[in-house]
Amino acid sequence: MAKHVEPDDGPRSKRAAILAAAIKNFGKNGYDATKWSTVADQVGIGQTALYHYFESKAHCLLTIMSIELQRSHEMFVKATADAPDPMAALRAAVRAAYAVSERDVLQMRTLQNNVAVLAVERRSQREETERKAARELVHQIEGAWPELPRQGMDAGVFVRRGDPHTLALTMLGMVVSVWAWYRPRGSVTLSDLSDLVEESCVRMVMP
Amino acid sequence: MAKHVEPDDGPRSKRAAILAAAIKNFGKNGYDATKWSTVADQVGIGQTALYHYFESKAHCLLTIMSIELQRSHEMFVKATADAPDPMAALRAAVRAAYAVSERDVLQMRTLQNNVAVLAVERRSQREETERKAARELVHQIEGAWPELPRQGMDAGVFVRRGDPHTLALTMLGMVVSVWAWYRPRGSVTLSDLSDLVEESCVRMVMP
Repeated sequence: MAKHVEPDDGPRSKRAAILAAAIKNFGKNGYDATKWSTVADQVGIGQTALYHYFESKAHCLLTIMSIELQRSHEMFVKATADAPDPMAALRAAVRAAYAVSERDVLQMRTLQNNVAVLAVERRSQREETERKAARELVHQIEGAWPELPRQGMDAGVFVRRGDPHTLALTMLGMVVSVWAWYRPRGSVTLSDLSDLVEESCVRMVMP
Repeated sequence: MAKHVEPDDGPRSKRAAILAAAIKNFGKNGYDATKWSTVADQVGIGQTALYHYFESKAHCLLTIMSIELQRSHEMFVKATADAPDPMAALRAAVRAAYAVSERDVLQMRTLQNNVAVLAVERRSQREETERKAARELVHQIEGAWPELPRQGMDAGVFVRRGDPHTLALTMLGMVVSVWAWYRPRGSVTLSDLSDLVEESCVRMVMP
């Protein structure tokens, strides 16, 4: 029996181009407002070729959500790994969350605006596989963030206030909430936002 | 020409029952996962009667979003109106955001999970009217919250850090982010959450 081979990212693959076009459309115009045929048109491929990479618009959305969750979790792990103390780790985690490209911003907005999709089982197998991967990443992220307040509390350098898990979810909620309204070239810069949220998280845990 | 009369809330009206069933289903199972016919079945009315009140599932969703935005804005205004100083006003605003019923929680979750719907123009006139009403309420809320840090900064009792508008949106983002994960009868109580977020907002503005 032939092994099922995932569409690769070889030189002739259109996967990267489809993802780029979908991220742009979902991020700027919204997932519901984007026609799947618009993505195909922009990439210059037909529906049959499109189907080779993504079974449906939902499959593409779930893939983008997984990619974004993977990216932000990797950045979090990388940023906090070498921090010399819990406060430095918290600061690094927030700064990493805002050290992003314009494409990352569209990807994060797409994730935030459609996070409810992850709660509902998909009937299609490829969609369901991607949804489960995304949920597992959410689980990892929501497991990793509480380590920041927990380590600070255990070391006695953070105030002991509520449980670390709830405090972490509250901070994470503040960190990601900005993607709903932040726009590149708006009046607020990413650097301003990064400073504001970093300082806010530090204040939340200071003894 | 007969004036168009909105379905009233008279003793025989099913509007309240439809809203209650829709809030329960959208809030617990998600908007996309809810079949419009399920709502009709639970209320015990047919599709034709349902249509008399709401043109579509989207029309009902947009109505629920407007109702929730109106409710939370009224609670904010009421809570902050008589506050003796800016810090008391900020504390009162946060406490009001968590002084909610289980139905309010489902309503807020429905609002937060579907907020991207408000960005896209509707083709149906009734849906579009409701979408515009909801957007106007978002505009009012996002105009009212920045008054809290602005008044505190102007009075010199809050630290002057970034612009009041961005600070307010960041606080509001934290306040509402909890509805994505909070569940009644979970391990974290509303009262714990209220205390945690109130204290966090106070810490964000302390000189």
